[in-house]
Amino acid sequence: MPNEAVRQHHSEVPGTEPRLLVSIAPHERAAFFPAGPAAALADITESIDIIDPADIADADLRHIDIAVVAWGFPAFDAALLARMPRLDLVVNAASSVRALVTDDFWNADIPITQSGAAMSPAVAEMSLTLTLSLLRRVHRMDHALRTGAAWDEARTISRAREISGARIGVVGASRTGREYIRMCAALGADVRVYDPYVTDSDPLHPHVLGLDELLASSDVVALHAPATDETRGMIGRRELALLRDGTSLINTARSSLVDEDALYEEVASCRIDAALDVFDPEPVATDDRWRSLPNALLTGHVGGATAESRARAGRIVVDEVARFRAGAPLQHAVTRATLERMG
Amino acid sequence: MPNEAVRQHHSEVPGTEPRLLVSIAPHERAAFFPAGPAAALADITESIDIIDPADIADADLRHIDIAVVAWGFPAFDAALLARMPRLDLVVNAASSVRALVTDDFWNADIPITQSGAAMSPAVAEMSLTLTLSLLRRVHRMDHALRTGAAWDEARTISRAREISGARIGVVGASRTGREYIRMCAALGADVRVYDPYVTDSDPLHPHVLGLDELLASSDVVALHAPATDETRGMIGRRELALLRDGTSLINTARSSLVDEDALYEEVASCRIDAALDVFDPEPVATDDRWRSLPNALLTGHVGGATAESRARAGRIVVDEVARFRAGAPLQHAVTRATLERMG
Repeated sequence: MPNEAVRQHHSEVPGTEPRLLVSIAPHERAAFFPAGPAAALADITESIDIIDPADIADADLRHIDIAVVAWGFPAFDAALLARMPRLDLVVNAASSVRALVTDDFWNADIPITQSGAAMSPAVAEMSLTLTLSLLRRVHRMDHALRTGAAWDEARTISRAREISGARIGVVGASRTGREYIRMCAALGADVRVYDPYVTDSDPLHPHVLGLDELLASSDVVALHAPATDETRGMIGRRELALLRDGTSLINTARSSLVDEDALYEEVASCRIDAALDVFDPEPVATDDRWRSLPNALLTGHVGGATAESRARAGRIVVDEVARFRAGAPLQHAVTRATLERMG
Repeated sequence: MPNEAVRQHHSEVPGTEPRLLVSIAPHERAAFFPAGPAAALADITESIDIIDPADIADADLRHIDIAVVAWGFPAFDAALLARMPRLDLVVNAASSVRALVTDDFWNADIPITQSGAAMSPAVAEMSLTLTLSLLRRVHRMDHALRTGAAWDEARTISRAREISGARIGVVGASRTGREYIRMCAALGADVRVYDPYVTDSDPLHPHVLGLDELLASSDVVALHAPATDETRGMIGRRELALLRDGTSLINTARSSLVDEDALYEEVASCRIDAALDVFDPEPVATDDRWRSLPNALLTGHVGGATAESRARAGRIVVDEVARFRAGAPLQHAVTRATLERMG
């Protein structure tokens, strides 16, 4: 098993060019590095191996110092680490590193970074998009017109609401939650937040409510909490029953936050509407129950997947590698301990 | 034919209670006056006849001084005016008065007001809602998931864009257009506007482009011009061809602005996406061609139809009647001349 003692940190030696692996599927690689990885990393090294994640199993990785990876790259287990004896930094261009790490990886004490910060503005905008769509009942009308409803029938919806003046309840004062709050407030919404970790000095503190009160008083409830053991199922049958008739529930965060069976019942009865970007399980089956509800708006776990978000992530990758080379502290490092608290 | 000379303006006599007609369908009447017309108008008069528009043909209207009307009320032609000899003010709780006025009405010189100002924030929010939905390709994914597409197929969309940094081209610096611009700018968009009537001193002036340049350089084009002879067909086949591939066109204004056949061809080919709240003709037939396009997002001419918009219109109605009673200038009066320039 590799361990730090026997590893040589070549890429930290000034004057030596590190050898970089960029292993990201072509479509996403182009999104992260619109001008190409070579141009993006030109100030750091000219020695870049571009290898498709599907070809990693057969690749020669002996000389790789730094690995830039994303979705589809295999976990760094003992076998892979043994094939990468010089590896001293892993930079995940995507968000969670959960699928990449193993006990062997943590024991090797190789730093790993992620680029989740790039996604927050994109997810927050997606949540805003779904919020506005549900407030205005756009989904209900669009679905009615597509399924052959008469014009007057399609227009006969429960009265649409404006975001200006609407009461919006945000569950989770995460980075994404705060971006979402900023945008909703700019559009005139009356935003409240539930988050047990908001401190007295937090600018959001005056807007904090208890979860039950938040649920019972909101026109829209938007979930922006991380997926942890503590948040699993926090929006259960009892909590959903607190929502007033006609409330809109938005989940661009994680499906584990919600009791999906209980949510399905509330939406199928048309008591509330829902917009969902995350499901359990994914992929969603072609005959899944959610796909036919007229008052549900569905997207395919793409909250963070914008052109701008990918380009931001690419810049985080380049900046992290540059910091590592300069001996500066990494700004997006993940440790075994911090991963526990992350979504 | 009634004329001003023989009309007595009873409702302007101080100390005399005017007799008001409120003729608005019950559903909308409740939206305009959430506490009821009697409560809303209590400071003005206790003499209110509430008559459904469908029953106007047989109603006794001889004693009506002021008529508060909305959609479905018949035009004020010579016959109707002859039945309302005391009428000296018409207050339209809805927007355009076009369906209410006749030559006979204008010749009678009875003032008429409308409440379109109430709708602008609602229409602007609808345009923003559709803008965000198309930038994020929410409609494409939702439609794909509803029509049985595999998860990965539904997710494989042209890359979504964020509104922050997006180039948004606004056609028409109307009241609604300006509200929309304010909201897009608050969310970080780079907004340009085409409007031949923007003056040098207008704060929008630095953001003005020619129509062709605007169309050719925008990620989203949102129409907010009035429907006049001058604007009819202003977005024709040639103009649509200037849009870059992947551009989103939003029309919450009037269908007459666009060559709908040419637009249909561009959207059906999937070269551009469109979100439409207005159609020609309306109602849209159940087998209409627009209803099956996967990259079109459709709503039923409800841009101004929010709970908040209706309540604002109700307050405009009350304020106009109060001003009339006080001999103060009406703030939402429409004349034959101003109607020509209105949408």
